[in-house]
Amino acid sequence: MPFRRLGPSGLRVPVFSLGGWLTLGGTVVGDPVKEIIKIAFENGCNMFDTAETYAKGKSESEMGRAIKELGLRRSDLVITTKLFWGTKSGPNAAGLSRKHIIEGMQASLQRLQMDYVDVIFAHRPDPHVPMEEVVRAFNYVIDKGWAFYWATSDWSAREIEEAYHVASVLGLIAPIAEQCAHNLFNREKPEKEYAPLYKKYNIGTTVWSPLAGGLLTGKYNDGIPADSRLANHGDEFKSAVESLQKEEGLTKIRKVKELTKLAEGELNCKVTHLALAWLARNPNTSTVILGASKPEQVIDNLKAIEVIPKLTPEIMAKIEAILDNKPTPVPTHGRPPLDPFGRL
Amino acid sequence: MPFRRLGPSGLRVPVFSLGGWLTLGGTVVGDPVKEIIKIAFENGCNMFDTAETYAKGKSESEMGRAIKELGLRRSDLVITTKLFWGTKSGPNAAGLSRKHIIEGMQASLQRLQMDYVDVIFAHRPDPHVPMEEVVRAFNYVIDKGWAFYWATSDWSAREIEEAYHVASVLGLIAPIAEQCAHNLFNREKPEKEYAPLYKKYNIGTTVWSPLAGGLLTGKYNDGIPADSRLANHGDEFKSAVESLQKEEGLTKIRKVKELTKLAEGELNCKVTHLALAWLARNPNTSTVILGASKPEQVIDNLKAIEVIPKLTPEIMAKIEAILDNKPTPVPTHGRPPLDPFGRL
Amino acid sequence: MPFRRLGPSGLRVPVFSLGGWLTLGGTVVGDPVKEIIKIAFENGCNMFDTAETYAKGKSESEMGRAIKELGLRRSDLVITTKLFWGTKSGPNAAGLSRKHIIEGMQASLQRLQMDYVDVIFAHRPDPHVPMEEVVRAFNYVIDKGWAFYWATSDWSAREIEEAYHVASVLGLIAPIAEQCAHNLFNREKPEKEYAPLYKKYNIGTTVWSPLAGGLLTGKYNDGIPADSRLANHGDEFKSAVESLQKEEGLTKIRKVKELTKLAEGELNCKVTHLALAWLARNPNTSTVILGASKPEQVIDNLKAIEVIPKLTPEIMAKIEAILDNKPTPVPTHGRPPLDPFGRL
Amino acid sequence: MPFRRLGPSGLRVPVFSLGGWLTLGGTVVGDPVKEIIKIAFENGCNMFDTAETYAKGKSESEMGRAIKELGLRRSDLVITTKLFWGTKSGPNAAGLSRKHIIEGMQASLQRLQMDYVDVIFAHRPDPHVPMEEVVRAFNYVIDKGWAFYWATSDWSAREIEEAYHVASVLGLIAPIAEQCAHNLFNREKPEKEYAPLYKKYNIGTTVWSPLAGGLLTGKYNDGIPADSRLANHGDEFKSAVESLQKEEGLTKIRKVKELTKLAEGELNCKVTHLALAWLARNPNTSTVILGASKPEQVIDNLKAIEVIPKLTPEIMAKIEAILDNKPTPVPTHGRPPLDPFGRL
Repeated sequence: MPFRRLGPSGLRVPVFSLGGWLTLGGTVVGDPVKEIIKIAFENGCNMFDTAETYAKGKSESEMGRAIKELGLRRSDLVITTKLFWGTKSGPNAAGLSRKHIIEGMQASLQRLQMDYVDVIFAHRPDPHVPMEEVVRAFNYVIDKGWAFYWATSDWSAREIEEAYHVASVLGLIAPIAEQCAHNLFNREKPEKEYAPLYKKYNIGTTVWSPLAGGLLTGKYNDGIPADSRLANHGDEFKSAVESLQKEEGLTKIRKVKELTKLAEGELNCKVTHLALAWLARNPNTSTVILGASKPEQVIDNLKAIEVIPKLTPEIMAKIEAILDNKPTPVPTHGRPPLDPFGRL
Repeated sequence: MPFRRLGPSGLRVPVFSLGGWLTLGGTVVGDPVKEIIKIAFENGCNMFDTAETYAKGKSESEMGRAIKELGLRRSDLVITTKLFWGTKSGPNAAGLSRKHIIEGMQASLQRLQMDYVDVIFAHRPDPHVPMEEVVRAFNYVIDKGWAFYWATSDWSAREIEEAYHVASVLGLIAPIAEQCAHNLFNREKPEKEYAPLYKKYNIGTTVWSPLAGGLLTGKYNDGIPADSRLANHGDEFKSAVESLQKEEGLTKIRKVKELTKLAEGELNCKVTHLALAWLARNPNTSTVILGASKPEQVIDNLKAIEVIPKLTPEIMAKIEAILDNKPTPVPTHGRPPLDPFGRL
Repeated sequence: MPFRRLGPSGLRVPVFSLGGWLTLGGTVVGDPVKEIIKIAFENGCNMFDTAETYAKGKSESEMGRAIKELGLRRSDLVITTKLFWGTKSGPNAAGLSRKHIIEGMQASLQRLQMDYVDVIFAHRPDPHVPMEEVVRAFNYVIDKGWAFYWATSDWSAREIEEAYHVASVLGLIAPIAEQCAHNLFNREKPEKEYAPLYKKYNIGTTVWSPLAGGLLTGKYNDGIPADSRLANHGDEFKSAVESLQKEEGLTKIRKVKELTKLAEGELNCKVTHLALAWLARNPNTSTVILGASKPEQVIDNLKAIEVIPKLTPEIMAKIEAILDNKPTPVPTHGRPPLDPFGRL
Repeated sequence: MPFRRLGPSGLRVPVFSLGGWLTLGGTVVGDPVKEIIKIAFENGCNMFDTAETYAKGKSESEMGRAIKELGLRRSDLVITTKLFWGTKSGPNAAGLSRKHIIEGMQASLQRLQMDYVDVIFAHRPDPHVPMEEVVRAFNYVIDKGWAFYWATSDWSAREIEEAYHVASVLGLIAPIAEQCAHNLFNREKPEKEYAPLYKKYNIGTTVWSPLAGGLLTGKYNDGIPADSRLANHGDEFKSAVESLQKEEGLTKIRKVKELTKLAEGELNCKVTHLALAWLARNPNTSTVILGASKPEQVIDNLKAIEVIPKLTPEIMAKIEAILDNKPTPVPTHGRPPLDPFGRL
């Protein structure tokens, strides 16, 4: 398993990590959770991502229990969880107030049966809390030893910039990564909006939705199968289901079919592997978070590692031609281009 | 129950909260305390305010015991207490020295049987302690995890300004709110003196004395009834009793009667509700602290919530006309007025 | 003429100011420039906006000459210009390098025949210059006495946030305003993207394109007239012309017609005045920059001042209903709404 | 001519610039200086580098006079000079004391007949002056408007690090570039020692000695010709002459011959062009400073521009194989390598 630094930090994370969203503690409970985590760990995938809100806290408790029962050594693992949505109702039971960050962190650790996580994420921005309070509260969490680093998820570039601003003015620790949706069909935010942040602050990304909700596995190529996420979580993904049947969705399915031809014909792999390797090949990607309902899925997904070096400039150009969705570059307002052989 | 941010913080507080002054631990002890807290909590009023000095510590211990016995979840509550007056005599048993803030905080938490409060207030300013010591000590309290935020009570605008100055220079946390007396007859400080602080620092207010010691309930309209606070706490409120019988007091009573007519005639509510809603309608008010000797009082006071949206600009103008005590605006020394449609 | 503070600064600007884009030094030269400036000044419109790039420097030189010949007192005027596009070609003749900011500022002052401007704008962001260099260079310009304030134009919220970050860390002066396009059809950036900046930094806006290139005057309601900007600057506005003839453009024209009915029927004014007053009524607008080819146009546009107070909540709701383009609010990710009567 | 940013700054410099060392004001004076500068400028080479010590000040005065007589517009030029060696003797006539930096800067500007240079270099480090004094003095120069940026020459990585440290602590402007010797035979400092500085501070390099004193033109392949620099500046370059005749020198000449074969056989250019293009292809090179005694030399050297894109990974590998002098990588003390597809 190849390892990368998580953004500007010294923490090393595997290129592919395992996430608990929807599956662990949700559709998967008990011994199967243990089996999935075991197979992932044995294959070098030692980073496990969860959140207080996944399965209303059960993702954390299942993951924590599984890790404990497997007897894995804490220092061998990279554990990440996220705060924002809470697990209860009530005016202060969610969000990024100092109160919820501290109370929520303690509740998460209790569910995980751990003394600390490696990275604590702010699962969303909270426009009703001043950035100073957020940055101070996450630094408190780090000072308490409850987390080694903090990070963001689904924040805008402006909000991350503001967090750096506050951290810098107060001499506090800034977030090291952003957990963002990134895949062949979702590129604007990770590839364009965050671009200045990679350059200036070296922030990392922990990518979720790498397969666009399964679309990039090709399983929706001929309609929505009965055992798929879109069929089972009907309500939650209603708009996704609907969009699949419209022009936009049909175009995507056509592109998936073309990518499948490329993957099978020229790379000798599934389109899934192409999609995962394409993310992993992006130097700004720190880790791609995989979801799995069965141990076999983990094993299969990790085959993408071998595809990474096969993504030559020529293959990348072919993928780009099929996708036809490359974000436009940041405008330079008529300034002549700089020499591409120098630093830009 | 409507919720508001407490000043610039991310903590959400109910528009009406419950205070322990004079009543809880004082005139009310044992099970009735529990009943009052229970009824308040069930009606969305989840913030409870006390102080080390209320009933010489008994307010804190009664409130703590009641909350424990009711089995309320800590994260669902907003608990605030205050340090300054102490509970014992002795040269260092009160004030805002680092010694008393730290020793007092620990004693309060012990009486409350809690690990932390949400907000710790400096109950008065202390001219004999440098502001740097005060700010540092409250930051120590926050760093220890004993409180999430700190605030002030009955401080002057200049003193709050100094606290912000010191906090900013030292990179420390500034106070988020001021607990001040505010009501239809007491407007100068909250409406004029603090005005620049609302604008610059966004500080909140946790209002005490919302009914002017009962005057605004109308119960002193025809003299001092035997079961009233003014009759029972004779010594403590001697000057208040005396002033009621003078010109100034008689004028106030006349205004209460006019407000009563307005409340009953046009708003279909008691003058008490009008007085409470008038405070709640002020955008600078974070929460209005209610006092109650009986559960029914809480229920009755909370009816003010429905009156808030009834306070239209027209009704507000009528109230202003009856009161005739609006603070004069800050002088601009001849500078022409700015366009009222822009930001001022 | 109503006056407002320009953002967080103490500088007072008229609600309507005069800009030189396209007209002064471009389609209008010589004595007519003088007449337009004279009539504007006599009507209280004492702020004149230009840029090094307008008419390749000729806008500055014409404006400077006219002001000199009119004998207007410098301290009675608010003069703003902008740097970025330069007036010459060459690798360092444009952009926001320290070199161009300093060399460009001196060239602008020479053309204007002035010792200083009131506000110097960065006409665009420059992704190839570190923000520290930009902030330092504009502070140098201020230290030299060549400008009293600096500001931005067409920057993203992230970039303005970064400028504040750098200014704050280095103890330097931050920009006070953003010159952005804002009108009834262009709302996303000024009303949504910048919202946190108004709240946190109190930045002002100097609005350009208030009439959407003339669309909001109604003159394109029945096609493109021969003497209009779209007809005369064909090449430059080609895409604007084309879009007018598509679905999107036709919808806009339909809305202009409905707004015209509202303006004439209920406000007794032209749609132009409604459009201008609507901007001026926005408390975040510091000044709306008018363009004029003839003195009469200035006089006519300033009639919008009387329309501002007529834009009652009811009228505003009708405009909103016609436009149907209100930016969606910032997402709160499921956090319950705060009490609208308190501060948000 | 391709342009690059000079390190982290917004200043754009041509990939090839012209230096005055030894030639301009030295072996070349009068009209020929003008001709060389004219031909360079006409070919896009608009950056001219000199130093107070070159030809004891005569390089600056000749260059200044030539530029003036050619009537070149100042903003079209990038002028750099250097302070350290002084032009006179005396205890304070050289070095990096505040006294010499300020006095020397003024003397240089006088000789150049200019109000400012674009970049002022510290020509050497000065161990007898505290870094704070050096950084403050160069910031004074920039505040006075005498230079837009400052830089270093022949400093160690540790000294540049210290300058950044001091600038950061004091909120002052740090140096933007290092003028260092770099060529196919001199790689240790620019490629290894400075590596962390490129990454952390983005510093640029203005490369001198690109042809290793002429060795890389092939002109010493068969001994030292009578009209060469080594023959004419005998004393100054004595050790260079001697080393050429030893084992080390003979090996270098053998490599030059092999590189010549590669240049002529596969790139259809002279070895000189290969050597210059190899530097220009390094993304950390900001500009390569050329020396010229005749206009034709400038023209010939600039042919290297066309060779840059011909330096494919395959050709680069062949060059590396011939040179066999690649600096060893920074040791990682047993830490496993990071994934090369991620950020390192």
